[in-house]
Amino acid sequence: MRFFEDCDGVTEARGFFATGVHCDIKGGHTGKLDLGIILSPRPCTAAGVFTTNDIKAAPVHFCQELLSKPDHSFHGVVANSGNANACTGKQGDLDTRKMASETARHLKVNPEEILVCSTGRIGVPLPMSRITAGIRDASLDVMDELDGGQAFQEAILTSDTCTKSCSAKIETASGTVITVGGVVKGAGMIQPNMATMLAFLCTDASASPAFLQKHLSTAVDQSFNRITIDGDMSTNDSVILLANGSTEIDIEKEPAKVQAEFIEAVQRVCSCLARKCVTDGEKVTKFVRVLVEGASDRESAEQVARAIANSLLVKSSWYGSDPNWGRIVDAAGYAKVGIQFNLLDLYYNEVPAIRKGEPLVTNKGQWKEVVSSKSFLIRLNLNMGNASEEIWSNDLSEAYVNFNKSE
Amino acid sequence: MRFFEDCDGVTEARGFFATGVHCDIKGGHTGKLDLGIILSPRPCTAAGVFTTNDIKAAPVHFCQELLSKPDHSFHGVVANSGNANACTGKQGDLDTRKMASETARHLKVNPEEILVCSTGRIGVPLPMSRITAGIRDASLDVMDELDGGQAFQEAILTSDTCTKSCSAKIETASGTVITVGGVVKGAGMIQPNMATMLAFLCTDASASPAFLQKHLSTAVDQSFNRITIDGDMSTNDSVILLANGSTEIDIEKEPAKVQAEFIEAVQRVCSCLARKCVTDGEKVTKFVRVLVEGASDRESAEQVARAIANSLLVKSSWYGSDPNWGRIVDAAGYAKVGIQFNLLDLYYNEVPAIRKGEPLVTNKGQWKEVVSSKSFLIRLNLNMGNASEEIWSNDLSEAYVNFNKSE
Repeated sequence: MRFFEDCDGVTEARGFFATGVHCDIKGGHTGKLDLGIILSPRPCTAAGVFTTNDIKAAPVHFCQELLSKPDHSFHGVVANSGNANACTGKQGDLDTRKMASETARHLKVNPEEILVCSTGRIGVPLPMSRITAGIRDASLDVMDELDGGQAFQEAILTSDTCTKSCSAKIETASGTVITVGGVVKGAGMIQPNMATMLAFLCTDASASPAFLQKHLSTAVDQSFNRITIDGDMSTNDSVILLANGSTEIDIEKEPAKVQAEFIEAVQRVCSCLARKCVTDGEKVTKFVRVLVEGASDRESAEQVARAIANSLLVKSSWYGSDPNWGRIVDAAGYAKVGIQFNLLDLYYNEVPAIRKGEPLVTNKGQWKEVVSSKSFLIRLNLNMGNASEEIWSNDLSEAYVNFNKSE
Repeated sequence: MRFFEDCDGVTEARGFFATGVHCDIKGGHTGKLDLGIILSPRPCTAAGVFTTNDIKAAPVHFCQELLSKPDHSFHGVVANSGNANACTGKQGDLDTRKMASETARHLKVNPEEILVCSTGRIGVPLPMSRITAGIRDASLDVMDELDGGQAFQEAILTSDTCTKSCSAKIETASGTVITVGGVVKGAGMIQPNMATMLAFLCTDASASPAFLQKHLSTAVDQSFNRITIDGDMSTNDSVILLANGSTEIDIEKEPAKVQAEFIEAVQRVCSCLARKCVTDGEKVTKFVRVLVEGASDRESAEQVARAIANSLLVKSSWYGSDPNWGRIVDAAGYAKVGIQFNLLDLYYNEVPAIRKGEPLVTNKGQWKEVVSSKSFLIRLNLNMGNASEEIWSNDLSEAYVNFNKSE
């Protein structure tokens, strides 16, 4: 498998066209691209994973409904930043449908073949006249088969500091190259309004919706669902995978080895994009993997890892390059899965800090060195069983608070 | 009932003596009082409520063991700040026992009649020679019947910015005044090491341990368990109630009205101390009550209230005096109790912000005014049932992060 970062993203896969335009959704004529379209002239199968928040934005309901239809096909996605179209009532539903139908009209496809995603401020109706103008402009671009993979990446950003993309390429026995390309906008930096994460993956193989859904769900569970920035979950989080079969390869008819490589490609793209989310943004200074081992089951491993990864005290100490194992152990304790201090082993990267509840204080200088680096691993063994889980997190800086204190 | 704040605290109740001394537990000879004793020459009955963290400090285990003994009596408490004696293994247990036995020796009582509390840094053994010297000095003070209620309040503080005390006085039919006095050190400000909360209540009535435990547990549940600063729970949180009967009043033999007043006194003292915890500290600028009504059960009401009260995005917006109902609704949604946006009513104090999912934007100026004040109420009605719960919280400032980034 060949793997690329900071590439064209979705348009790395054959037969996908994309663009991003400025239609001034937030007002102020900043020129920031704020509406994007992905088009595949060939019909695609698709899969999606969405926020589990009780409060889901209108486009989330819309996509979930379309994706639940059996043997449904798609031609693309329209996505906007600057306005989440969440908590916008019946008007929000109508506006989402209008985005799909306007896009479909220009692209000369069925309105039910277009998925819709939004991100940005909650509770404000979409400025539909600007959006329909943006859809018209963007549609012209993709009808011209524009390779605007970069512009699409920019169009979906909110307060992200950079575009985030990657692609994986595998080869069949006959030498055909299959690509999985992906882009994401971040939960990595906290948005002024909401930590919405939108990710789009496109592949030029074909596969059944069930196959795509199964492997996308697994990949998301091991990547996007493993990251935590501030514990908040958005109304709009969405991950969408489109497969258009431009390579004429039906991945489900390939030998097991190729299938496995394809599945791994989807997973690696998701993992790479998730990691980019966590580390994006000048307000984040550290990338921290929290691995909890030796738990009695995966659920309790995850609870402990999340308690550590979400603790403000722990995250503040990382920002200050302070190892502070006391805060880590305390957070692990309030996950309340029955941990015992005299069983705990704790490591900063490979440096032991606690062994069976005994702090190894002679290593203190090394702990400090690890926690001073930009990226490190906290490994906690509960020694109660064989289950483990890993959560990816980051530090909490003063700038985070300053940035989020108002919009 | 008469109620007093910023008073002598535990020594407001008759027959209790207290003090605080400096024994340099953290080193550096700052002169800060760091060890305190409460003595009642009359034996007391007692009750306690402790942290539910899996990782409990040595003194927590010690107190829980003593308080579980039937018909056990006590003569007082020794408490230190600067070192939590948590995650200190067998040595920690020995040191706690030594604190009790040294105190008992000087006070000429049984070692099993002294309760022990510690707060401060985790994972460092207590400096026992300094502590035993401090115990000797403090014991001399209380043996001299010193009314050092103020000094005791100071001795238990860590990074709190002020002492926190109150007392409630009720009268029996015969005119005897019964006092419940209390002091607390804060979870209100986050400690450099841990958000430990220690509270001590003393009353000069007598009551059985079962009576005290029942009403202390209820009072703590409605006060200290309702506050959240950063969602972290310490290894050392303890609330202790001592009753010495100096008034010769057995509260359980009093008429129902007096009993009810006594129970209310305990509750009011706990509520007042809990509120002082939340608002203490220059790093906190707002006191916010989050009331969730109309839930299907109390558990889900509490989950929603805690999700809002613990959300970094919500707390950051309060700091910036930004009403941001979108973040509040989003946090309520990820509590995942099945809320529906089109049922929600939201109020800032008495100002409606959302009615059945419709934002009342004409009130926007008033929302802003409410959230700009030092203390306000967020009231969210889920309109799904009749249960409600209230959580007390505060804002998240840049100074919080700066303060906690290292020790």
